Amino acid sequence: MKKKVFFQGEHGAFSEEAAFKYFGKNINSNSCYTFEQVFRSVRSTKYAYGIIPIENSLAGSLHLNYDLLMRYNLQIVGEINHRISHHLIGIKRSRIKDIKKIISHPVALQQCKNFIKTIKSIDVTETYDTAGSVKMLMKSGSINSAAIASYSASKLYGGKILKRNIEDYKENFTRFLLLSKKKVKTIGKPNKTSIVFTLKNESGILYKALSGFAIRGIDLTKIESRPIRERPFEYYFYLDFVGYIDDINVKNAIKQLRELTDYIKILGSYPKFMS
Amino acid sequence: MKKKVFFQGEHGAFSEEAAFKYFGKNINSNSCYTFEQVFRSVRSTKYAYGIIPIENSLAGSLHLNYDLLMRYNLQIVGEINHRISHHLIGIKRSRIKDIKKIISHPVALQQCKNFIKTIKSIDVTETYDTAGSVKMLMKSGSINSAAIASYSASKLYGGKILKRNIEDYKENFTRFLLLSKKKVKTIGKPNKTSIVFTLKNESGILYKALSGFAIRGIDLTKIESRPIRERPFEYYFYLDFVGYIDDINVKNAIKQLRELTDYIKILGSYPKFMS
Repeated sequence: MKKKVFFQGEHGAFSEEAAFKYFGKNINSNSCYTFEQVFRSVRSTKYAYGIIPIENSLAGSLHLNYDLLMRYNLQIVGEINHRISHHLIGIKRSRIKDIKKIISHPVALQQCKNFIKTIKSIDVTETYDTAGSVKMLMKSGSINSAAIASYSASKLYGGKILKRNIEDYKENFTRFLLLSKKKVKTIGKPNKTSIVFTLKNESGILYKALSGFAIRGIDLTKIESRPIRERPFEYYFYLDFVGYIDDINVKNAIKQLRELTDYIKILGSYPKFMS
Repeated sequence: MKKKVFFQGEHGAFSEEAAFKYFGKNINSNSCYTFEQVFRSVRSTKYAYGIIPIENSLAGSLHLNYDLLMRYNLQIVGEINHRISHHLIGIKRSRIKDIKKIISHPVALQQCKNFIKTIKSIDVTETYDTAGSVKMLMKSGSINSAAIASYSASKLYGGKILKRNIEDYKENFTRFLLLSKKKVKTIGKPNKTSIVFTLKNESGILYKALSGFAIRGIDLTKIESRPIRERPFEYYFYLDFVGYIDDINVKNAIKQLRELTDYIKILGSYPKFMS
């Protein structure tokens, strides 16, 4: 049976691309309208996975998805870093010099500003979705229009890539998380664990909170504070570290952390992404 | 002479709204196309300020603006938290039951999804800019159309607010930074200092890096790690703490931090925002 994977966006979206990269092409990928729908679908479907973006190298962490991780009892079971590359896509007969109009989602247009400026008297039109703009383009059959979207979107709707990697910043990566209802037991690989916890705003408290990890030689790979708006002077902390949740030193570090906080949520242990 | 302030976006943008909240209405506010233009304009103009968003309660830190803070030698001289509220705006004669079409920037439309769903058979059209959509609406003079934008945009273009605060998540706040070429000397107020530094990925190194602050009782208000893509296993850290850069304990903490890192950039000391 094919793996069932839920993602947010239209088919050809970067999340779906990341899912293919993680699981291979032979999966049953399902488009959702919102991120919350991804969480709900995974919760209500047997043996299903979800894939969500959690941080981008230009735009930071998606707190909204951290909120959903805290609210839904799903496990992080994997991670993958995926480069966000935008391509100029035309219909098969189209050549780059024919292009008089470009359509895409405003965020993609924004990320390709410098390239778009190089084309004289171009008409730029915004659409709801990058992948959807390729679909629209193919339907129109116009040789004078091009869409900006992912490689998968071009492939999926039968487009032709007129120019590759037209994004202004090449260092545009998104880290995606794979979600499931059940833990995975991974053996042998280096594992990572993600947790969220709260701390009151006392000077030195973060230092104390990290001591349990430092004295046990546990490598941190991410830390981020986020103010809790309803409780001024309290913070959420996102912490990722190397180790599996059932490792004895990880267990002890978490136990020590519990002395300082009322709230810890273990989001999951999963194989570390190796590029 | 009026204060000159540069911001990104059209007049009526949230950045301009935050600038008015910070300095009062009697300023000379200048619209820029990109964030980098804000930095360049402040650099090349006498006695000018810039205002940029640095983090949002739903969408996280804007690494892109941290990159600009590291590249340009401007000082952070202030901060302000501003709530992002979206309003449904019509022309003066319009009533909410007349509305058959809504126009706005896709991000604003996205943030008001639940509200939009409540209106039967509504036509939704995307535009380049929230404030710009109000401008367009007023020009059209249609009683059947409405824009989604800020309070200032409504005011500026002579619109009428048909429904307030239609955003799905009320906890939508953005923290803005005020930039200038020169330091400000603030006395008496609680001050904050923002720095960026790098650390190699050794276990326990962040713990060591924080010790200089912990032992001196310096309160941290933000910490965030960000992988440096060109140098795997190294991280940037964003750190905000309470204190002025010339305070003796702050100086000593920074001195101690320098023993662990080759790169520290002091982004500025400035009065802490009080809500």
